[in-house]
Amino acid sequence: MPVQLIDRTPGAYAYPLLIKQLLHTPLAIAPEQEITYLGGRRHSYRVLRERIGRLASALAGLGIEAGHTVAMMDWDSHRYLDCFFAVPMMGAVLQTVNVRLSPEQILYTLNHARADVVLVNAEFLPILAEIAPRLESVRRFVLIEDAPAAGPAPVAFVGEYEALLAAASPDYDFPDFDENAKATTFYTTGTTGVPKGVYFSHRQLVLHTLSTAAAFGNAPVQGRLHRDDVYMPMTPMFHVHAWGMPYVATMLGLKQVYPGRYVPEILLKLIRDEGVTVSHCVPTILHMLLVHPLSKVIDLSRWKLMIGGSALSQALAKSALERGIDVFTGYGMSETCPILSVAHVPTEALGAPLAEQAVLRARTGRPMPLVDLRVVDRDLADLPHDGHTTGEVVVRSPWLTQGYLHNPEASAELWEGGVLHTGDIGYIDAEGFLQITDRIKDVIKTGGEWTSSLQIEDVVAQHPAVADVAVIGVPDPRWGERPRALVTLRPESVGQVSEHDIRNFAARLIESGGISRYGVLLQVQFVEALARTSVGKLNKRAMREAQE
Amino acid sequence: MPVQLIDRTPGAYAYPLLIKQLLHTPLAIAPEQEITYLGGRRHSYRVLRERIGRLASALAGLGIEAGHTVAMMDWDSHRYLDCFFAVPMMGAVLQTVNVRLSPEQILYTLNHARADVVLVNAEFLPILAEIAPRLESVRRFVLIEDAPAAGPAPVAFVGEYEALLAAASPDYDFPDFDENAKATTFYTTGTTGVPKGVYFSHRQLVLHTLSTAAAFGNAPVQGRLHRDDVYMPMTPMFHVHAWGMPYVATMLGLKQVYPGRYVPEILLKLIRDEGVTVSHCVPTILHMLLVHPLSKVIDLSRWKLMIGGSALSQALAKSALERGIDVFTGYGMSETCPILSVAHVPTEALGAPLAEQAVLRARTGRPMPLVDLRVVDRDLADLPHDGHTTGEVVVRSPWLTQGYLHNPEASAELWEGGVLHTGDIGYIDAEGFLQITDRIKDVIKTGGEWTSSLQIEDVVAQHPAVADVAVIGVPDPRWGERPRALVTLRPESVGQVSEHDIRNFAARLIESGGISRYGVLLQVQFVEALARTSVGKLNKRAMREAQE
Repeated sequence: MPVQLIDRTPGAYAYPLLIKQLLHTPLAIAPEQEITYLGGRRHSYRVLRERIGRLASALAGLGIEAGHTVAMMDWDSHRYLDCFFAVPMMGAVLQTVNVRLSPEQILYTLNHARADVVLVNAEFLPILAEIAPRLESVRRFVLIEDAPAAGPAPVAFVGEYEALLAAASPDYDFPDFDENAKATTFYTTGTTGVPKGVYFSHRQLVLHTLSTAAAFGNAPVQGRLHRDDVYMPMTPMFHVHAWGMPYVATMLGLKQVYPGRYVPEILLKLIRDEGVTVSHCVPTILHMLLVHPLSKVIDLSRWKLMIGGSALSQALAKSALERGIDVFTGYGMSETCPILSVAHVPTEALGAPLAEQAVLRARTGRPMPLVDLRVVDRDLADLPHDGHTTGEVVVRSPWLTQGYLHNPEASAELWEGGVLHTGDIGYIDAEGFLQITDRIKDVIKTGGEWTSSLQIEDVVAQHPAVADVAVIGVPDPRWGERPRALVTLRPESVGQVSEHDIRNFAARLIESGGISRYGVLLQVQFVEALARTSVGKLNKRAMREAQE
Repeated sequence: MPVQLIDRTPGAYAYPLLIKQLLHTPLAIAPEQEITYLGGRRHSYRVLRERIGRLASALAGLGIEAGHTVAMMDWDSHRYLDCFFAVPMMGAVLQTVNVRLSPEQILYTLNHARADVVLVNAEFLPILAEIAPRLESVRRFVLIEDAPAAGPAPVAFVGEYEALLAAASPDYDFPDFDENAKATTFYTTGTTGVPKGVYFSHRQLVLHTLSTAAAFGNAPVQGRLHRDDVYMPMTPMFHVHAWGMPYVATMLGLKQVYPGRYVPEILLKLIRDEGVTVSHCVPTILHMLLVHPLSKVIDLSRWKLMIGGSALSQALAKSALERGIDVFTGYGMSETCPILSVAHVPTEALGAPLAEQAVLRARTGRPMPLVDLRVVDRDLADLPHDGHTTGEVVVRSPWLTQGYLHNPEASAELWEGGVLHTGDIGYIDAEGFLQITDRIKDVIKTGGEWTSSLQIEDVVAQHPAVADVAVIGVPDPRWGERPRALVTLRPESVGQVSEHDIRNFAARLIESGGISRYGVLLQVQFVEALARTSVGKLNKRAMREAQE
């Protein structure tokens, strides 16, 4: 027999999962809550709702309809939050443009996504000047100005963002439509080939928002999110919806602080002056803040900080803990909306010494509600949750990109066997914690065995002279590959320590840690800086190429 | 232009919202967590998962398939939790039978829902004996026994529940299917006419679970739910899925305690011995517990208690607060899965005296995520959120019954104008708190004005001699209706106080409270007991009829 589908009374509201539905609760319970840009401009959720209507009216006035694509080029701002809601709520698609890509890559993504209109911060006019003549689908440009512009415009703007909003009606009748409508799109900044477009539906974003709110809300003590929190993103809004947290913060009616471009001094002052209690960033940003003098004099002990994008090293976790920051790992990627797992520390472990807690907080975490996350062998069979057997991390959840835009081959590879392949290698322990050990493509294959470059990085990073480290595999005639640590030194240590010192330090630790072969084979090389991708991740492909 | 639907790569998993998907997280993060029945029997989530497989295999062995209906007649038990998952996960429908209805009503609901199999606790065999010959669709009976039975069985049982599970395979391949498949059905126990069947899909239950977890998790301090909690229901599992909390508790991997039939002494001992920290019940049950001698000597200060089903009086809230119980209101009904709003107290009000807090905790609450809750006039236009203008409460959310089973007229009335009509009268204040003042049919209409019977009940309840009170409207030649308070006295006050004393006490308070006309018109009448429905709600219809 088939299942019985529920009978729907004519007139009963079937309630599609649309982004607009996230606004019901905050408007009901927190209409006067604040949203601030840089601590200067501030307005209420009631005004946010009006701005969403005004932006939709203004875009409609420019000919934008359901199905069109609106591209946004801005730093993290109240305007970006308007767009997170207004554009999808119209039935249009919001393209969040990675402004750190090269102009050629930005051009590629705008043409590939068939953007109809571009909203662009004046800061990016030089990029626009370079690519405008080659844009294939863009018909209109809207200027975003924090201050009146100095020079002539490289394209004909239909107007300035705030002026357009002021002139438009706040009343816009946001329609219901299929919850599988595309809401957002953006491009992964992988280290190989051209950028790949991922895309998310209204349904996916609503479900990601609900599950994230539940996962963070139900944390017993450490890292928990609640309605008295004050939120500030430090992962760009153009990058995987700032990890989806602006949607979560809005649904819960939190005070929100948008910091513009990430300038350490500004970020630290906003934390202090606006009472920020919850943020997220990549390790590089955390490192930048911790070395800034202001961070020594600002109270960071009320600040929860989720780290993702790259692995949180135990050393960095410990540094943050010593400042009183409640630091912990979140895991996900562009393809996964992004959040899959969070390393909330079990209550009974919160009394442990900071060094032990750093280990727990640097784990990749446990899956959020509805996330079916597995570590599997090549046949997609589950591997034991024994805390050491590694395999590929594959996942199912309701918020995974259903493919790459206009790229069926890469899409088929992503979804091979009906599961999304993260490309990460890891293991799961008996408590259900996942630990990523490496990217499949960054694993070092020595004498037929795989080992984790991250594990070696963690060891090298323990030397007090080391500022940053990346371990890559380099060809070796006997072993196939051997590990090489590219190291940047702390300024005060330059000239005080040799490559040999670091190597011996690390080799001894490695040997005592039971991965002895890698201690013998390890090489250390000092470099000025580590190659990174446009979003600040270590670019090991570039590092390997530079070795050739 | 139409919206762009997201492209799905062939092989990409579209992830239907099915009840089985709630199990991924607890099995990953809390496989050894406990579920106990009465503090005696206990097993892990790992075993729960096996039992779900075994139950499905056993039911399949009885010929149960997708689309069939499995009726459950039991008190709150680990077996009921098995059924909450196994039956819908097969694609079948779980009918949760209200065992407090009359045998004739139970017969009606089993025939009306076309139940195929009935799982029945031995305690209800007298009911079964009475109705079995008239059951129209039931083909099989499964016996549930806490202890070996004494007498002969009234029907031929295919076996005993635990024996069937022990003999069945834990491996059952739960298929994917349409998330709009019906998962559960049960009957409202209204005070008018025959019971009406409501029904909920997998999608609806998953979304209710996520939103409830988020709403309770993100409460800043008071009434918040987290993964260290220990859950025990005190609203029956047959009644609106025990308010959906067993699904929430399971998704979060909480320790769960099932108490069987609600016996105050057993409930209190389970709270003490199993460390229960979160429950929910109707006011009557709370009252029963507070008057039980054991409650005086058991520490209840770690216990969060959501009250629903009937209004929480400020007097009862204060009594509970004085015992250290974190008591607060949740709002919903059979038609709404059920939860719509929760009266979490804002952090800044938690330092207020208990009497003030009782007021806040007795409010109807603020809407959960995705709930679009409005108070409207007859034309469905929004009324101001001014804290006093009353109208009907109408609602949209993703988890509302889409009709009444086989009852198009009542369904059309429920969904008139595309919103679900709660039948409740209330107002919303500037902070977004809803306050239900009455049922539409229980409002007292005096001289062309409406007033709230609950408001007058709260005043009368403040007299120290009053044990319980219900206010109804009785016909009056001049005013149309006037309020009459039916009062039960505390045992020690019987004979010590007159109806006149109570009336004067209340009238004075009413006059000072600014609803003076009702003070003059109020009548008080002592009664032995207040009429209640099968689930313990005040039955004002019966009271009014008894006056005629």
